[in-house]
Amino acid sequence: MPTIPHIERHFRATETVRDVVIGMSDGLTVPFALAAGLSGAVAVTSIVVTAGLAEIAAGAIAMGLGGYLAAKTDIEHYNTERIREIGETNEVPEKEKEEIVDVFRAYGLAEDQITPLVDSISSERERWVDFMMRFELGLDKPNRARARHSAITIATSYIIGGLIPLSPYIIFDQIKISLLFSIALTLVALFIFGYIKARFTGIKPIRGAVQTILVGGLAAGAAFFIARMIS
Amino acid sequence: MPTIPHIERHFRATETVRDVVIGMSDGLTVPFALAAGLSGAVAVTSIVVTAGLAEIAAGAIAMGLGGYLAAKTDIEHYNTERIREIGETNEVPEKEKEEIVDVFRAYGLAEDQITPLVDSISSERERWVDFMMRFELGLDKPNRARARHSAITIATSYIIGGLIPLSPYIIFDQIKISLLFSIALTLVALFIFGYIKARFTGIKPIRGAVQTILVGGLAAGAAFFIARMIS
Repeated sequence: MPTIPHIERHFRATETVRDVVIGMSDGLTVPFALAAGLSGAVAVTSIVVTAGLAEIAAGAIAMGLGGYLAAKTDIEHYNTERIREIGETNEVPEKEKEEIVDVFRAYGLAEDQITPLVDSISSERERWVDFMMRFELGLDKPNRARARHSAITIATSYIIGGLIPLSPYIIFDQIKISLLFSIALTLVALFIFGYIKARFTGIKPIRGAVQTILVGGLAAGAAFFIARMIS
Repeated sequence: MPTIPHIERHFRATETVRDVVIGMSDGLTVPFALAAGLSGAVAVTSIVVTAGLAEIAAGAIAMGLGGYLAAKTDIEHYNTERIREIGETNEVPEKEKEEIVDVFRAYGLAEDQITPLVDSISSERERWVDFMMRFELGLDKPNRARARHSAITIATSYIIGGLIPLSPYIIFDQIKISLLFSIALTLVALFIFGYIKARFTGIKPIRGAVQTILVGGLAAGAAFFIARMIS
């Protein structure tokens, strides 16, 4: 046995971090792109601010409530599948046992090794069903408290993210100055956000920052180009 | 053995369906809400169309590229964790074997049943690491081809979804008529979309339809209210 301490350093993104990333990615990008796009089409900042705030409100609610309902649906989906699995262990137990065999056969276990495993797992209904949920269907038990928390985190992150690119249009009257400040501010924000996000997902921070800037830049460029073409 | 045919009727949302849902949920909601919000603040449809199209472009790119990068990050995350697991099976094999024991102990197996299992799984490096990835970390091997396909599906769904609420503003000159047609059209689209989506996620179709309309309605209401307050 090795005597060095063994610490599992695998990263497991907490669900809150994931929600902040979901909300802020879009919050930084879409309002920035919309504002930049409108800057190419309208003459006054007030319309940009109105459109920007309307978009932030719509986006935050759509994403927040969307996240809430998705989490609720996950819970219901899990419960429905669980009831079905319970039914199957009652109605076609031999078939369900065969499915346990399939899971372990994939890891090179011999038939005579698998038989006691199957007996042990299927000896208790709860354990059997839990096993099928996880390893046949790949479903983890969803966290009940998550839905509301997730909704609030996503919506708040979207609002904070969206107000960053919009703030220069609120402060300044001239649209060109606002646009320049918005670009500068958002580039810095996207860089910091991409850098931090990358640390959580395990990719190289600088690469994460560049990727994030690229997405924001492309979205804004396309919006700017389309808005200018129409007007 | 039962003689009736056993068909697994569990629903597994294909990844394409998920991507269509992701893109279309936001595509139907946010451009609709933005257009409705601006209808309360500006006098001409041309600004609504410009802002709407800019938003659709920005949203489609942000969501599509975001989905692409998320899928890529999943692949890299999996690979990084796999390399780490390989390292751990080299450096601290006894500890990793103990983790196999933990997995099986949770399913009620006795120690003397677990020992041959551990020996069998750990006898081949690839199999051992695969087992740890799946049963210790709960990570499934991501599909390599998915990233690009996912990006295109999400972006296309967002564009199609977004053009539905925007089309009346493109067709009609008068903003009030456009708004009314946009509301009617979007309600119908949200109903159909929510109904179909519910069939895939296993909740009651009518309930899914009502939920989807509620999200779109609340987002649009908030956007409308905010835009009217500012202007």
